[in-house]
Amino acid sequence: MSQSISAHPDRLLPADPGTRSIARDLLGRVQDLPIISPHGHVDAAVLEQNTPFPDPAALLVSPDHYVTRLIHASGVPLEQLRAQAGAQADPSAAAPESRSVWRAFCEAWPLFEGTASGYWLRDQFHSVFGLAQEISAATADASYDAISARLQEADFRPRQLFKDFNIEVLATTDDPLDDLAAHKALAGDATFHGRVLPTFRPDAYLNPANPAWGGNVERLIAAAGDGGSGFAGYLTALENRRRYFVEHGAVSADHGVRTPRTLKLDAAEAERLFERARSGEASAAEREDFEAHMMYQMARMSVEDGLVMTIHPGSFRNHHTETFSKFGADTGHDIPFAIDYTESIRPVLQDFGNSKDFHLVLFTMDETVYSRELAPLAGFYPSVYLGAPWWFLDAPDAMLRFRSAVTETAGFSRSSGFIDDTRAFCSIPARHNASRRIEASFLARLVAEHRISEDRAHDIIVDLVDGSPRRVFKL
Amino acid sequence: MSQSISAHPDRLLPADPGTRSIARDLLGRVQDLPIISPHGHVDAAVLEQNTPFPDPAALLVSPDHYVTRLIHASGVPLEQLRAQAGAQADPSAAAPESRSVWRAFCEAWPLFEGTASGYWLRDQFHSVFGLAQEISAATADASYDAISARLQEADFRPRQLFKDFNIEVLATTDDPLDDLAAHKALAGDATFHGRVLPTFRPDAYLNPANPAWGGNVERLIAAAGDGGSGFAGYLTALENRRRYFVEHGAVSADHGVRTPRTLKLDAAEAERLFERARSGEASAAEREDFEAHMMYQMARMSVEDGLVMTIHPGSFRNHHTETFSKFGADTGHDIPFAIDYTESIRPVLQDFGNSKDFHLVLFTMDETVYSRELAPLAGFYPSVYLGAPWWFLDAPDAMLRFRSAVTETAGFSRSSGFIDDTRAFCSIPARHNASRRIEASFLARLVAEHRISEDRAHDIIVDLVDGSPRRVFKL
Amino acid sequence: MSQSISAHPDRLLPADPGTRSIARDLLGRVQDLPIISPHGHVDAAVLEQNTPFPDPAALLVSPDHYVTRLIHASGVPLEQLRAQAGAQADPSAAAPESRSVWRAFCEAWPLFEGTASGYWLRDQFHSVFGLAQEISAATADASYDAISARLQEADFRPRQLFKDFNIEVLATTDDPLDDLAAHKALAGDATFHGRVLPTFRPDAYLNPANPAWGGNVERLIAAAGDGGSGFAGYLTALENRRRYFVEHGAVSADHGVRTPRTLKLDAAEAERLFERARSGEASAAEREDFEAHMMYQMARMSVEDGLVMTIHPGSFRNHHTETFSKFGADTGHDIPFAIDYTESIRPVLQDFGNSKDFHLVLFTMDETVYSRELAPLAGFYPSVYLGAPWWFLDAPDAMLRFRSAVTETAGFSRSSGFIDDTRAFCSIPARHNASRRIEASFLARLVAEHRISEDRAHDIIVDLVDGSPRRVFKL
Repeated sequence: MSQSISAHPDRLLPADPGTRSIARDLLGRVQDLPIISPHGHVDAAVLEQNTPFPDPAALLVSPDHYVTRLIHASGVPLEQLRAQAGAQADPSAAAPESRSVWRAFCEAWPLFEGTASGYWLRDQFHSVFGLAQEISAATADASYDAISARLQEADFRPRQLFKDFNIEVLATTDDPLDDLAAHKALAGDATFHGRVLPTFRPDAYLNPANPAWGGNVERLIAAAGDGGSGFAGYLTALENRRRYFVEHGAVSADHGVRTPRTLKLDAAEAERLFERARSGEASAAEREDFEAHMMYQMARMSVEDGLVMTIHPGSFRNHHTETFSKFGADTGHDIPFAIDYTESIRPVLQDFGNSKDFHLVLFTMDETVYSRELAPLAGFYPSVYLGAPWWFLDAPDAMLRFRSAVTETAGFSRSSGFIDDTRAFCSIPARHNASRRIEASFLARLVAEHRISEDRAHDIIVDLVDGSPRRVFKL
Repeated sequence: MSQSISAHPDRLLPADPGTRSIARDLLGRVQDLPIISPHGHVDAAVLEQNTPFPDPAALLVSPDHYVTRLIHASGVPLEQLRAQAGAQADPSAAAPESRSVWRAFCEAWPLFEGTASGYWLRDQFHSVFGLAQEISAATADASYDAISARLQEADFRPRQLFKDFNIEVLATTDDPLDDLAAHKALAGDATFHGRVLPTFRPDAYLNPANPAWGGNVERLIAAAGDGGSGFAGYLTALENRRRYFVEHGAVSADHGVRTPRTLKLDAAEAERLFERARSGEASAAEREDFEAHMMYQMARMSVEDGLVMTIHPGSFRNHHTETFSKFGADTGHDIPFAIDYTESIRPVLQDFGNSKDFHLVLFTMDETVYSRELAPLAGFYPSVYLGAPWWFLDAPDAMLRFRSAVTETAGFSRSSGFIDDTRAFCSIPARHNASRRIEASFLARLVAEHRISEDRAHDIIVDLVDGSPRRVFKL
Repeated sequence: MSQSISAHPDRLLPADPGTRSIARDLLGRVQDLPIISPHGHVDAAVLEQNTPFPDPAALLVSPDHYVTRLIHASGVPLEQLRAQAGAQADPSAAAPESRSVWRAFCEAWPLFEGTASGYWLRDQFHSVFGLAQEISAATADASYDAISARLQEADFRPRQLFKDFNIEVLATTDDPLDDLAAHKALAGDATFHGRVLPTFRPDAYLNPANPAWGGNVERLIAAAGDGGSGFAGYLTALENRRRYFVEHGAVSADHGVRTPRTLKLDAAEAERLFERARSGEASAAEREDFEAHMMYQMARMSVEDGLVMTIHPGSFRNHHTETFSKFGADTGHDIPFAIDYTESIRPVLQDFGNSKDFHLVLFTMDETVYSRELAPLAGFYPSVYLGAPWWFLDAPDAMLRFRSAVTETAGFSRSSGFIDDTRAFCSIPARHNASRRIEASFLARLVAEHRISEDRAHDIIVDLVDGSPRRVFKL
C-alpha cells in the first residue's frame, strides 16, 4: 500500500480534481526534459573513473547528513550510522558493519514520513533500485541484499546512470587550487556525452576566521600569484584561478558565507586588513570586514570574467562542537538563522547591480526574506536572481511557499531554475522530478483561479525547468 | 484564450467547486458597492481640471514604478521606458517616443504573468480600455492605437471615469503647505458629486535626515507659526496646517517613515534636538531621535484634532543611488526590510493607545509582524487598526496570507478596509475588485470549513468592504 | 443557521471532498482518545475541592484575557468586563454585575468570528452547556440563565467534568514553594481517577528584574536551602524543591522568559552576579546574564532530575502600563516580538543537547523560527522537541502553518503533542478536539497528494495525539 505512493503518477500534485488535471498537463510538458544541474556536490572523479557505488549504507545513509541527523535526533549515536568504509575521527570506536547501519536506517524509516528526504529516498527505492516493497525494519536484510545486487549490476555505474537519468549538465563544487583533472578528462572523453562543469568555491581562501585561511592564502599566492605577494598577489591569484576555472568550463563561483554582508573598501584599507589577518592580529570585526570586502571583490571579478555569483548564507555551521570534533563538518547540525539582504548586499548592487551580464543568485534558508527583500531586489536589479529554495526549504510545501511569496512581486522570469545542491548522485532524478511536480502544482492553481491562461502556464513551466537555468547560469 | 481570463467571473476565486460557489455569493454582496479610497496618490488637480489623459505609455507605463521596475530587471534601461513627456534628469539622452515605450512594454508583457501589476493591467485593458485581445509584442501598435483612441473619447475624462468607476470617496496625499485649491474647487463644484479629500503628509517636515528639511521647516514656520519661532513655532505651525487640512475635509495624516520608532521626550530635550538639527549639528542618532519624537507629537496631535494616523514604515528608499540620481524617487528600487512594532510603537500606545477616537493604522511590508505583533496589538488597543496589505503585499496570495495571519487573533473588526495607495487612476476599480474577490475567497474557505456561517460571512464581507473604511477613516 | 456549525461533524476539515473524506477517517481514529494535557493553568484545588463553577461571566468572560482583550479593543473599558467576583485594584470603581458583563460579551460576540477564542466558545456553548441557539445580544439574558442553570446542576462539577471530558492527565502550573497539598490529596483520593500533576514554574525566583525576586529568593533559601546561604544555598534550594515536585508527580519544569537566551558561567562569576542582584546593584545587563545563566542551570538540573524543560519566550508582558497598574498581569496586552533560538539556546545544547533523557520543549509566538531554527534543531538534537503552536498560534490556520513549516525538516516524531495551556477548564475538550481536527486535516492533505500512505497517516495521528505527549513528557 505504502509503496504504491512512490509510483503514483499524481504524487505531489494538488488534491482538487480540476486543479490536478491542469497540473498533470503541465507536468507532461516537462517530465521528460533533460536534467540541468548547475550547482551540486557530486565528485567529478566518480564520473571520470566510473567508480562503482559502495554498499547500500555507504551510498545512501552514512554520508547523507539529511538522513543521519534525523536518526540521530531519535537517539541513535552517529557512530552507529557510519559504516566501516567511512572516515572515523575516533579510531577506538569500532565502526559498525554496513549491514548494521542499514538495519538502523530501516528501523528509523518511519521518522522520514512527510520529510523531503523521505520523499527522495522512497522515489529512489522505487525508480532507481526497483524495490517492490516499502522499506521496513522487518525487511531490512532483504532490501539490503536487493540494493547490493543492483549496485553490482554492470549497468549500475555512474556514467550509465548519468545517461539513464537524462542529465545534460552537472556542475560540481571545487577548491580554487584543484587542477580539475577529472573535468578535463571527461571533457576530452569522446565516449562521455554529458557536460560536467567545475564551480569555483573559494570560501576557505576568503574568510580569515577559517583556521585554514592563512595556509590556504600562502598556497594560493605561491601557486597563482604571478610572483606578486601581499594583497595584490592574492587578488591576482584569485583572478588567475577563476580564469583557469572559466577555461575549464566553469560557469559560476559559489560562496558559502555566514551572512550576506558585503563591503566596499579602498585598496589601502583592504590591504591593511589583509596583512593584519595574515599576521593573526586582526580582530573579529576586522576579519568580518575583510570577508565582506572579499565578497565585493568576488562580485567585481564576476563582472569581469562572467562567472555567475551564487551566495549561500545564513547557516550557523557545526552548531554542536562535540559532534564536529568527532565527525567533522556536514554532519547534520548546521542551523539557519535570520538574515538581511537589503542592507547587506547593497554595496555590491550599488556598483554592479546594473552591470551587463552580471548574474547574482541569492539563496536563503530564512523564508522571511523571500517576499520582503529578495523578490523586490530581483524585481528591479537585472543582476539579481532568486535562488531556488535551498536545503531545508528544498521540499514540496516550502517550494510552494517560495513561489507564493515571490511571484506576485517578481513574476516567473527572475528565478534561477531548480538547484539540487546534492552529494547524493542517485537522488538527482527524484529531486528534479519533485521540483517539476511542484512547479506544475503552483501554476495549476493560478490557472484554476484564472490568474494565468493555460497556454501561458505551459510556456512558463518549460521556461522554469529548462530556460531559466540555461539563461541564468549562461549554459 | 488568455484574454478571456480577465473577463472570467470567477477570476481569483478558489478552485474547489464548493468553496467557489460560496465565494461567488459573497462577492455578489459587494461587487457593486461604491469605491471608498481613503489613501492614495491621485492628483486632485487632475479631477478639478478634468485633464485629458496623456498617451498610453505616459498614462500606463512611464510613471508606474511597479511596471517599469520589472522591465528594468529584464535588462531594459529606464531611459527607454520614460517617454518624451516625462521628466529627464539627463538632457543628453534623447527620450524615446511614446509609441516606442509602449512597444517595449508589450514585448515585456509576459514578465508580468502572475504579478499583481499584471493582474491589474489586464483587468484595465479589458474593462476600462475595451481591448479584445491580449497585449503582445506582435499587436503593440494596434493596442497603442486602440488605447489612444479611447483616451480621446469625450467621455474618457477623469470626472466621467470617477463616476463610471463608482468612486464615492477618494483621498489624495498632500504637502502640509499645499493650499488645497483643487480640493476647495471640487468641494464647491455643484457638478461634481464625489468626495475628494486631502491627506496631511508631513514626512519632509519631520525628518532632519531629509536634505530639504531645513528649508521646509523655515517655510513652515514662516507660513503658519503664528509669529512663533523655534520648536514652539514649529509645533504651532504643524498644528495650524493640520487644522487647515481638517477644515478642507482631510480625515487622515500619513507618515512614510524608515522605521516605526516613536519616542517621548520632554519639551526641553525635544527643543534641543530641533535646534541641533536646524543648525546642521545633529548626529545621525539625534536626527533619528528627533524624527521618532515627532511621530509621538503627530500621535498627540491626532488625538487632539481627530486626524486618523497612518504609518507606512520599513522601506529602504532609493536603494540604487545611480538610478535615484538620474531618475529621482519612486523609480522601482525601494526595498523593504525587517521591522519591529512591539517596542517601536509602544511610547505612543502607552500614552494614547486607549485614547477615545484615536485611530492608528499600521502598515507593513514585513509580513512577519502580522501574526506576531500587529494582530496582538490590534486585538487589545482600541486605537490600533491593521492596515491593508501594502505595496508588494497588495496582491492576491499576499492578501490571503494576511487574512490567515491576523484573523485568528484579531478577528475581522480590526482591519482598515482596502487601501489602493495608487497613482494610477485607471487601476482603481481593478484593485478594489481584486481585493473584494480575495475577501470573498478567504471567507468562503472559512464557511466551507464550517468555521463561520454563511449568513455571518455575508455581513462580514459587507463590513470589510464598506463599513470598515468608513468607520476607521471616520468618513 | 450559525449554531449548526458548532455541531457540524466536518468542522475545521478541508473543503475538498476527497481530502475531507480522508480527514474524517483520520479523525475517527483519535476522536475518542483520552485527553492528555501536560501543560496548563487549571487550579488543582478546584478539582480537589470540587468547587462549583461561578456564574457565566465569572467563568467564561472576566478571567479569560483572550476574550476580554478583543472586547476592550472594540472600545469597552476593562472595568466593564470584570464582574463583582473578580479582583479589583481600584476599589472606587463599582464593579458591574455579572449579568451586565455577560450582556457586554453577547453584544461583542460578532467580534470573535474567525478567531480561535470564538471557535472554542461556540464549541463549549454547544457541547458543554447545551445551548441550542447562537449567542447574540438579543438573547443575552436567556443564554445567561441557561448557562447559570447548567452551572447549578449536580453533575456540573469539576470532578464529573474531568471524567466527562475524558481527561487522563492534567498538569497544573505551580510556584516552587507551593506545598502541593491539593495534588497530594487528589493522588490519595480513591474516588478520583485522573492524574493531576504539578509543574515547577520558577520564573519569579530566577529573574532579578522581577520586583519580587529578592524576597522570593530569601524565602526559597530559608525554606529549602538546607542551611546553606548565598548562591550555593540558592541552587540547593532549587534542586530540593524540584525534587519535591518530582516526588509529587511533576514531570516538567516550565519557564516563561523574555528571550530564549542561555549562558554558561563559571561558579564564581555566577555567584558574583547573584550577590550583585541580591544587593540591588546589578545592572540590567548583569540581571539578564544571571537569568540566562539560571536557564542553563535549569537545564543542568533537568538532566539530573529528569524534569522535562519547557521554554515559553518572546512575549513583551504587560505592554500597556496603565492597564497593568489597574488590572494586573494577564489582562490581554502581552505582545510577541521576534526571537532567535539558534544562538540563544546553543550554550544549553552544547552541553546537554545529546544528554540521555533530557527533553527540552521549545515554544514560540514568532512563527519565523519554525522552519528556520526549530525544525532544524529538533531534527538533529535528541533533546529538542517542537512545542505545539502556542497562545495566539493555537488556532486552526496557525496550526496548519506550523505543520507545513516543520514537517518537511523534522517529520512528525519531534513534536510535543498538543498543549492547551489554558486556565479555562471548560474549554479543554474544545481545544484538544480542534487540534485533532487540524492534525487530521494536515495529514489528509499529505495523503491526498500521495506523500504519505493512508495506513501510515493512521499510525501518525494516533502517535501525535496519544504517543507524543506520553513520550515527550515521560507520562
